[in-house]
Amino acid sequence: MKIQLALDRLSINEAISITKLVESEIDWIEVGTSLIKEFGMQSVKEIKAAFPNKIIVADTKTMDNGKYELEMSFQAGADIVTVMGSAPLITIKTCLEIAKKHQKKIMIDLLNTSEEQVNSLLPFTEAIFCEHISKDEQELSGKYKAQTKSRLKKQAVVEVAAAGGITLEAIHQLIEENLDVAIIGSAITKAKDPAVAAHAFKQTVIKGGVLS
Amino acid sequence: MKIQLALDRLSINEAISITKLVESEIDWIEVGTSLIKEFGMQSVKEIKAAFPNKIIVADTKTMDNGKYELEMSFQAGADIVTVMGSAPLITIKTCLEIAKKHQKKIMIDLLNTSEEQVNSLLPFTEAIFCEHISKDEQELSGKYKAQTKSRLKKQAVVEVAAAGGITLEAIHQLIEENLDVAIIGSAITKAKDPAVAAHAFKQTVIKGGVLS
Repeated sequence: MKIQLALDRLSINEAISITKLVESEIDWIEVGTSLIKEFGMQSVKEIKAAFPNKIIVADTKTMDNGKYELEMSFQAGADIVTVMGSAPLITIKTCLEIAKKHQKKIMIDLLNTSEEQVNSLLPFTEAIFCEHISKDEQELSGKYKAQTKSRLKKQAVVEVAAAGGITLEAIHQLIEENLDVAIIGSAITKAKDPAVAAHAFKQTVIKGGVLS
Repeated sequence: MKIQLALDRLSINEAISITKLVESEIDWIEVGTSLIKEFGMQSVKEIKAAFPNKIIVADTKTMDNGKYELEMSFQAGADIVTVMGSAPLITIKTCLEIAKKHQKKIMIDLLNTSEEQVNSLLPFTEAIFCEHISKDEQELSGKYKAQTKSRLKKQAVVEVAAAGGITLEAIHQLIEENLDVAIIGSAITKAKDPAVAAHAFKQTVIKGGVLS
């Protein structure tokens, strides 16, 4: 299982500094939606330049204008770009085509999608599917929730990621579910010692025997 | 009916130059999602600074992290911020609360929402509701479509906007539907003469007798 570090609610410099502390423990680096909307593509460019050998995920959460948003992101250095599962199907198809053209990938964010929407997306087997409990659902709903299950993995034809409130405890469940990517944000970036936190996640994944 | 000029797929300077040509003919200025994702909040700041007396709509298309994204947008100078109708309800509620706190507004983008989702949003009567055919649905579906109808106006308790492929012909239908805001992008920004195009829209709205 890969660990994707999600960088949100930080300046670009803070994001780079924290990532440097944990670089050896994580696999993919996500430039979070909050960085993209606050600083634009400059955030993707600077983070790719700082970590040229890492896979960079640009969490654009694309809802429309697929070609423009994906080309802009790939040009800035992204390797994977996110598109919402709740977007019109033609946008998701367009994103997939643009990604293929650039020999890159898309991640389809399943936040707040219906079973029917998920089923309509399953033919896109080249995409990574991301089960996602939102920040607002985690932080504002009054009870702690983590994304620990997937509606998808049993179908097993697609790569599956999970995002939202993932702690050391929750990652055990993701390992049991045999998911492909665990997306971890504040449990590392807001930890007292990000390096220690990231090391613990990595060790748990290694011991889980599904390190890839 | 108000005219909201949507600025997309432009540099900040191009957006400002075009808006200067049509300033007297339009009511609200939308900093499009593509500008926000390409240039960040700098796009909102510079456009508000260039047009301090206009209402600025930041088309953030918020899906999550409502408090952070809205506060960032209001601080940059936005008067109205968009949130997706397909976002979790708690995000939309949060956005509405943050907007009220700042004495600002939200616009709920109904792109690709179900009737059930629209019905669950109707209690948010302080929001502006935006019926929306996406760029990708317009440009890539192989047939011209414009947003000319609303599922909402007959209920008449909320302000309703329409976006997507709106031409001079389509705006007649929006006037007949008695909608509150027509969101016009490329029909003005990509016109041979944006000032002439904007003047024609404004005159049509005035003659429609529903100028507000």
